Amino acid sequence: MVLIILKLGGSILSDKNIPYSVKWDNLERIAMGIKNALDHYKNKNKDIKLILVHGGGAFGHPVAKKYLKIENGKKSFVNMEKGFWDIQRAMRRFNNIVIDTLQSYDIPAVSIQPSSFVVFGDKLIFNTFAIKEMVKRNLVPVIHGDITVDDKNNYKIISGDDIVPYLANELKADLILYATDVDGVLIDNKPINRIDKNNIDEILDYLSGSNSIDITGGMRYKIEMIRKNKCRGFVFNGNKANNVYKALLGEVEGTEIDFSE
Amino acid sequence: MVLIILKLGGSILSDKNIPYSVKWDNLERIAMGIKNALDHYKNKNKDIKLILVHGGGAFGHPVAKKYLKIENGKKSFVNMEKGFWDIQRAMRRFNNIVIDTLQSYDIPAVSIQPSSFVVFGDKLIFNTFAIKEMVKRNLVPVIHGDITVDDKNNYKIISGDDIVPYLANELKADLILYATDVDGVLIDNKPINRIDKNNIDEILDYLSGSNSIDITGGMRYKIEMIRKNKCRGFVFNGNKANNVYKALLGEVEGTEIDFSE
Repeated sequence: MVLIILKLGGSILSDKNIPYSVKWDNLERIAMGIKNALDHYKNKNKDIKLILVHGGGAFGHPVAKKYLKIENGKKSFVNMEKGFWDIQRAMRRFNNIVIDTLQSYDIPAVSIQPSSFVVFGDKLIFNTFAIKEMVKRNLVPVIHGDITVDDKNNYKIISGDDIVPYLANELKADLILYATDVDGVLIDNKPINRIDKNNIDEILDYLSGSNSIDITGGMRYKIEMIRKNKCRGFVFNGNKANNVYKALLGEVEGTEIDFSE
Repeated sequence: MVLIILKLGGSILSDKNIPYSVKWDNLERIAMGIKNALDHYKNKNKDIKLILVHGGGAFGHPVAKKYLKIENGKKSFVNMEKGFWDIQRAMRRFNNIVIDTLQSYDIPAVSIQPSSFVVFGDKLIFNTFAIKEMVKRNLVPVIHGDITVDDKNNYKIISGDDIVPYLANELKADLILYATDVDGVLIDNKPINRIDKNNIDEILDYLSGSNSIDITGGMRYKIEMIRKNKCRGFVFNGNKANNVYKALLGEVEGTEIDFSE
């Protein structure tokens, strides 16, 4: 059995600058790539388990921003009697679109809504019993960035980049794949081949957040979360045709990030 | 602090005989009743916490039925690669309608989707940390009947009547209220005043499921779950004007079921 976690960056499924926009061509192409990869493994009698994670994209981000107050550099959420549901509803809409598309390619996708059960305080409380049972049945859980309660009477966004390494660690994933809108972790506009304990300090010096506006911190945050959770990931360009398919087969060009022990 | 759990039966919010129907008059009236009751307590400076639970009604039931196979009296679900999401999506739609209506009356409703995290095997795994944090913030979690994974490689419907007594027990609810489509627990068409350990055997002899078709067992099941979870509930008619408001104030006519210790 091989467990793969595939993160679809919010910006390859939607245009963050246009609220509620969907990049339908990417979404359809990626769904087809996933279906083809699952069929490839099925034909070889290989038992592949898959979990998908997608970001907030043009749905979660603009709505969350309406309720985010930054005072003296400290972030907090306000008016959440309305805001919590507003963010949930936007993310449910996005998640529905993603799952309906996957299902139209006969991918057995099901929904996981983190805001229903995750507490994201100093420690992350994220019960994965149901996800494990789904994976056993060959269902494909589709988890998304979401609003959560923390343990200090406020709220916190949980991003796909928080969820992926946590799940990888909890479920002992064999491979994590990050489909992003760039060719890998870029240093001077060229993707670096590999990041591990030998060059991590150097790399982090170069990076300071991703190019597009991303409240959860972009590439630097991705790398730090992979390191924290001691796992192995692969960052590649999800906009390029066939790349998701290739990645699922372990053959895509991009950056390998390896902090597994 | 007083914690109230209010169950809105699927059949008072929708007509189970007409798929995807919504009883808008009831829904609007009940939302207004809840808002008025919350305001009543607020004006008296009383700290009231509220959790709502609704059934599957005309959304969950007809879709779930498509995937339910009964062979030799044994229920199991089939074709769940499609079915799990199909049921989730139907319940999300219903839950969206309920929460949007509550929010339109300024009730700070948020969504809890059980299928995301509940495992309903011999034991019920249902993590309530996030729900507790929401309640602390005066949000009103709106939880619904849903499809779940069990621990035996199959699936199981969790109904509102499974959820309510479990939550009441976990969160130490002070009062549980069942808004149903009848005047209480009926014996010879008249509501009985009170059910407790002294008359339970007698009552259960009379009852054999509710009048309308209900795959989760109706009144008998409600009573048994209240007994199992050692709590106290009140069954009343949610179709009657003002009854939800009155019930939240502890003044409605119906049947009291008391197995608290």
